[in-house]
Amino acid sequence: MINETYRAMLGAKNVIRELSEYATARGKEIGYENVYDFSLGNPSVPVPEAFTEKMIGLLKTGDTMSLHGYTPTLGNAHFKERVAASLNKKYGMHYEAKHIFPTTGAAGAVAHAVRAVSAPGDEIIVIAPFFSEYKPYVEGAGCVMRIVAADTDSFQIDFELLEKAIGKKTAAVLINTPNNPSGVVFSKETLKELARILTKKSEECGHNLFLITDEPYRDILFDKKEAPYVSSFYPHTLSCYSYAKSMSIPGERLGYVAVQPDCEAADEIVPMCGQISRGLGHNCPPSIIMQAVADICDETSDLSVYETNMNIIYDTVTALGLSCVRPGGTFYIFPKAPEEDAVAFCKKATEYDLILVPSDGFGVKGFFRMAYCVDTKKVERAMPVLRRFITEVYG
Amino acid sequence: MINETYRAMLGAKNVIRELSEYATARGKEIGYENVYDFSLGNPSVPVPEAFTEKMIGLLKTGDTMSLHGYTPTLGNAHFKERVAASLNKKYGMHYEAKHIFPTTGAAGAVAHAVRAVSAPGDEIIVIAPFFSEYKPYVEGAGCVMRIVAADTDSFQIDFELLEKAIGKKTAAVLINTPNNPSGVVFSKETLKELARILTKKSEECGHNLFLITDEPYRDILFDKKEAPYVSSFYPHTLSCYSYAKSMSIPGERLGYVAVQPDCEAADEIVPMCGQISRGLGHNCPPSIIMQAVADICDETSDLSVYETNMNIIYDTVTALGLSCVRPGGTFYIFPKAPEEDAVAFCKKATEYDLILVPSDGFGVKGFFRMAYCVDTKKVERAMPVLRRFITEVYG
Repeated sequence: MINETYRAMLGAKNVIRELSEYATARGKEIGYENVYDFSLGNPSVPVPEAFTEKMIGLLKTGDTMSLHGYTPTLGNAHFKERVAASLNKKYGMHYEAKHIFPTTGAAGAVAHAVRAVSAPGDEIIVIAPFFSEYKPYVEGAGCVMRIVAADTDSFQIDFELLEKAIGKKTAAVLINTPNNPSGVVFSKETLKELARILTKKSEECGHNLFLITDEPYRDILFDKKEAPYVSSFYPHTLSCYSYAKSMSIPGERLGYVAVQPDCEAADEIVPMCGQISRGLGHNCPPSIIMQAVADICDETSDLSVYETNMNIIYDTVTALGLSCVRPGGTFYIFPKAPEEDAVAFCKKATEYDLILVPSDGFGVKGFFRMAYCVDTKKVERAMPVLRRFITEVYG
Repeated sequence: MINETYRAMLGAKNVIRELSEYATARGKEIGYENVYDFSLGNPSVPVPEAFTEKMIGLLKTGDTMSLHGYTPTLGNAHFKERVAASLNKKYGMHYEAKHIFPTTGAAGAVAHAVRAVSAPGDEIIVIAPFFSEYKPYVEGAGCVMRIVAADTDSFQIDFELLEKAIGKKTAAVLINTPNNPSGVVFSKETLKELARILTKKSEECGHNLFLITDEPYRDILFDKKEAPYVSSFYPHTLSCYSYAKSMSIPGERLGYVAVQPDCEAADEIVPMCGQISRGLGHNCPPSIIMQAVADICDETSDLSVYETNMNIIYDTVTALGLSCVRPGGTFYIFPKAPEEDAVAFCKKATEYDLILVPSDGFGVKGFFRMAYCVDTKKVERAMPVLRRFITEVYG
């Protein structure tokens, strides 16, 4: 029989997708250059040239069997070694290849990580604002997603609320830093306090609480800052990464889970992910992409445009009097809307051909997200329109 | 907490993988050319040149954002259109793009198809011998796999047993033709009778029984025969395909679910697969592979070597007096072992450096599988060894 659960999901609205589709339709009417579409997080800068060169080089070697053949169940060995070496050099860690499980993007990584450290019925805690797909990842594992309300002053973590949320059924806390949608990077102090609470609560619970950290924006940082590396603060950490944003290859589906070497069952989690994969029909990310990225895994696209765009928007929204935490990375910004109902606000914005995403789907009310992976000239052209909208409607 | 179900799976032995690892280790001792390894179904012929050319061509266009960017949730539109057109031309069907859901190989396809037409607790019927990964696909969806014992005379379907197996809890029947491990192609008569029984039983059950057909070997056919197209026999059919074997690109993870246009909820199943994907962290097969295959989806590698190899082995095993159904396709053959205990038989074979897979994992006792995606010269060299083994041990 047709699965009625999935069928029922067809009726549910995906706000971001609807906005994006509206933008496309409106673009056909008035020209897409006249629609200020800040809805989608699709990278807007070309891939590193080294990636393209590497791909063409591999294709020209002609050994198509080793290039396109099945990869080992637990991933291409060379890719795993290179990732471990890169993390060790960059963050002073001591990963080995056996701690790296290659996945189809960060989505695949989080889906595996949640299953590895939970049983159906367990609770996974997320901190608002959170990426809206966490709900299907958590529920797909048979778990319950428990939301800790946002600290809207800083978009760090409200630890009082977190402590209250952790209970007997908690299996893991799932965080996202640099954060989509807020653009905020969790500080060293935040991560230290998070580790302290997880350690304390693990003792109270009688079992280790895991930390799953989703970090696809780890390499998009502003103000020449380095982001603290989450896994260096707490041993029982599974770090989920994707090359989608740093190399602008979201469609090629390459990421990984990196299991902290001091984690409980550190040597078992990657083989367990291999078993999880079988039931999901996942079976490794694409072979040629793993092989191409292996040797150039520290390369990134020219990501500087995102900082340029962030500064333009941040200056405009703050000048307009909107409260806004300055993003430390990503290509998102998350200002406070000038009215409580963010959905109503974003709807009014569309009348100015401004496509903004209301915060409700991210677990917070009264804010809006702008994804500025958009040509800088368009960002510049959008600012007078944003100014006109805010002053005319809310002035 | 560490998931104990997946952890417990680490102890379980994967016979095929163990044999393959043994072959690799033995190869290091005596030279891999001296190990007659028939364990793994990894294609042994190069990819079509058109695939490599198309890949390089795409990489050289330089529009990296449309090449490597996110694909739409339900897959690349051009790929879907081309697949539908190809199936319509080849099999006289009337698919539209909306009936095609691109997946990461046939594994992803079956994992989605099972979830779309079942609810947790339902039964999925498989016909022995069956591909051993069906168990994790079915159990991953929360369903129970029910096995219909093999018709070992023909490796078609024992319909009496099938009729008995179908009950109130049956959601779907999952078949695999051309079949791994038997190499047998289900005949027109078999598919007609299967459709008749499914139609009759659907009426009795009060709901439509679905047919999921796993067809990665659909294009590897022998004796110049055409395989009957399963979906043309029964409307409520989800056909799962992969380019892994026909184009020798198993590592690139590209396949699809094709929903028969006359199927119940035909227009809803692909969008439902999109929802299923969210929970699995699946999110589309790789973008460049979809784009490369779209225009050349009717190309195949030079598959003739598999027929050459099949004939050599078939002639040898039948001359040795082993009972064997002649394969109609694939790169597998499934002779009867000369003793009841196939595991013991295959163990003895390793003493002759012959790596054969016992039938037990495929749901049948007393047979063995040989995967002849192997260089023909090696197949030829292996035959005297096989002869010596059988005559010395069982003569």
